Amino acid sequence: MRPIEFKVEKKEGIARAGILKTPHGEIKTPAFVPVATKADVKGVEPTKYKDLGIQTVICNTYHLYLSPGEELIAKAGGLHQFMGFDGPLITDSGGFQVFSLGEGFGKGVSKFLPEHVSEDDVVTVYDEDVASQHGKLAIVDEEGVTFTSHVDGSLHRFTPERSVEIQQKLGSDIFFAFDQCTAPTSPFEFQKEAMERTHTWAKRSLKAHRQNIDANNKQAIYGIGQGGPYDDLRRQSAREIGEMGFDGFGLGGSFSRKYGDNSLQSALNMLTELPEGMPVHGLGVSEPEDILLGAAHGVDTFDGVTPTRNGRTGGIFTKRGKIQIPNAEFKEDFSPLDEGCECPTCQHHTRAYVHHLFRTKELLGPVLASMHNIYFLTHLTTQIRESILNGNFNEFHDTFLAQYKQ
Amino acid sequence: MRPIEFKVEKKEGIARAGILKTPHGEIKTPAFVPVATKADVKGVEPTKYKDLGIQTVICNTYHLYLSPGEELIAKAGGLHQFMGFDGPLITDSGGFQVFSLGEGFGKGVSKFLPEHVSEDDVVTVYDEDVASQHGKLAIVDEEGVTFTSHVDGSLHRFTPERSVEIQQKLGSDIFFAFDQCTAPTSPFEFQKEAMERTHTWAKRSLKAHRQNIDANNKQAIYGIGQGGPYDDLRRQSAREIGEMGFDGFGLGGSFSRKYGDNSLQSALNMLTELPEGMPVHGLGVSEPEDILLGAAHGVDTFDGVTPTRNGRTGGIFTKRGKIQIPNAEFKEDFSPLDEGCECPTCQHHTRAYVHHLFRTKELLGPVLASMHNIYFLTHLTTQIRESILNGNFNEFHDTFLAQYKQ
Repeated sequence: MRPIEFKVEKKEGIARAGILKTPHGEIKTPAFVPVATKADVKGVEPTKYKDLGIQTVICNTYHLYLSPGEELIAKAGGLHQFMGFDGPLITDSGGFQVFSLGEGFGKGVSKFLPEHVSEDDVVTVYDEDVASQHGKLAIVDEEGVTFTSHVDGSLHRFTPERSVEIQQKLGSDIFFAFDQCTAPTSPFEFQKEAMERTHTWAKRSLKAHRQNIDANNKQAIYGIGQGGPYDDLRRQSAREIGEMGFDGFGLGGSFSRKYGDNSLQSALNMLTELPEGMPVHGLGVSEPEDILLGAAHGVDTFDGVTPTRNGRTGGIFTKRGKIQIPNAEFKEDFSPLDEGCECPTCQHHTRAYVHHLFRTKELLGPVLASMHNIYFLTHLTTQIRESILNGNFNEFHDTFLAQYKQ
Repeated sequence: MRPIEFKVEKKEGIARAGILKTPHGEIKTPAFVPVATKADVKGVEPTKYKDLGIQTVICNTYHLYLSPGEELIAKAGGLHQFMGFDGPLITDSGGFQVFSLGEGFGKGVSKFLPEHVSEDDVVTVYDEDVASQHGKLAIVDEEGVTFTSHVDGSLHRFTPERSVEIQQKLGSDIFFAFDQCTAPTSPFEFQKEAMERTHTWAKRSLKAHRQNIDANNKQAIYGIGQGGPYDDLRRQSAREIGEMGFDGFGLGGSFSRKYGDNSLQSALNMLTELPEGMPVHGLGVSEPEDILLGAAHGVDTFDGVTPTRNGRTGGIFTKRGKIQIPNAEFKEDFSPLDEGCECPTCQHHTRAYVHHLFRTKELLGPVLASMHNIYFLTHLTTQIRESILNGNFNEFHDTFLAQYKQ
């Protein structure tokens, strides 16, 4: 018996509306999942989650491992208890964060090696210039990744087994296998190597999870597919990960229009190779156009930092595209951030007010902007869901994009 | 017919519980009034006001005049509309801010004078060192105050008439006459001069307000009494301001234990000189002990920045005194910020979680801490009110202080 259950309610083409049942409640899909890296959605008070259409959030294993540590969270009674949220919780494996510490910045010569790793085993090392600039370093070997903390520079090591162990202590409803993330610009040979390593680590993650659970297991594990912009690799990755017995599939690497059509189409082609009805999560997908495109190809859940990252600097999603609310043009604009929006910010405040808050550097500006942006994306996925259920997703898709591009 | 109506419901000694009826609803007193300097309570979303026991907030004329300007707020339909709050609103006159720009930092030689002001007229000038350091400057003359903006260094002038004009455009339910604030350390002659000037300005403020209103006037004006730590001055100020026909009285200057017993007792003695039943506001009074003491002497409303200022750096009010939540001792403390507290933060989160948010520099830390602190003070005034209505205020007073000092 799987700890989660996914039921596809209706399809339109390969787009689908479904219900993902987890031990902490249902997620109606497609669904946008706000990022709660350090066990909080930046600036958003958990009692507002419901008003913002938030069904679930995704926390980060790397960050929570470093601070406050999985042992403390376990002592608190798990992540739900620790952060005061009783709904479904997802944790990312930390693979992407390790990627962004190391390979994400390029290759070079390592400054140190863990004792058991020989020079020959090192497949990804950090660019010295970047390392000296950021004080960051991550080394991937066949067994795992050794990295320095971005907080205090201390030395740490993640293996698939360790990532699973941490995520079990966190107690998320859904967690991800530890993967090796790649940049879309990396060459074929490197992508292939990383993909193969990701598959090996996926098996080890699954094994480690199964060794440690009993019949009452309440945690689902998703495998992550990689392969960069290469169609063959992507399809192979989906087939292999899809067959391993995971509870769901994570679309890894870089799935966004901004990485080019090849990369995008190859990523989306993965879905055709997966077992029928396996839930799919798009990792780091949070631009409205990308969510729409992902949903059109059968992606069920999406996470990403765009609503809060934009929100902190005054970038606001509207039906007609993104606006920068601190710009002078909004000084005397007494309309809501987005006409017709039913989020708490738009129900009570104007563009002029939020503009004023940003101009005078008030903490409430980022708070109100982030709330609006999150609602914008959860509402977008709600609209996608409803249009699929009503059989007019294609129409909604085209209408939304025609307006959004203006 | 006055725009506000104050009814004392019950007294215990000279402490009193009352209802202050304003055009935007009732304020049950004693009441703590959070500070919304720039038309927002820092980090607190207005839809949470009710849950935090907030009945009214106090905005700042000086800050709103500089940005976004009273004309823009008038265009928005007034301050209520602009900030999206439909309850009673109070505005401070800007006198204190001008004080903190100028005399608050000491005396010295002015770098400039407005054209119509001669050197001889200058009674308060700014310390050059402080001015060069902060780029701030304020000069008081008999007619008003000339000052440079803390935002862009531009030159501005407030007179009693101008302050009233701005506050009428803001449209607050209750506003304050423009006063000359003094530091408790200023000598007697200076306090006397400032008090007399404040009285002249009070008459001019009242006259300016009356000239500009019709029978539908919906704005009340409070006069502010000064006099520093000198009992004679304080009593004289209360008598004179009390007789002028204001709708209420503002306890000005420095009314807090931290300025010493003389200063405190003199300020509180003012209340015995006021007309029976005139509502009294304690300006800048927001330490729990000071609120309790003020209420014991018949102060009805209190404002101050302690809940948000402390909240931003992790200072937390509890029944047993203030704690610093970022301190290591709270890392594994899974109890609420304050045991038994019914604020949204304490209902959902632990000290360990808020500690974690501060340690990892998350925006939500200051938000949750500020919310708790505001509730702590609104709840304190609610408890004071209930104890007066129940006839056991003295008991509550002593019990609270005995515990708070631990």
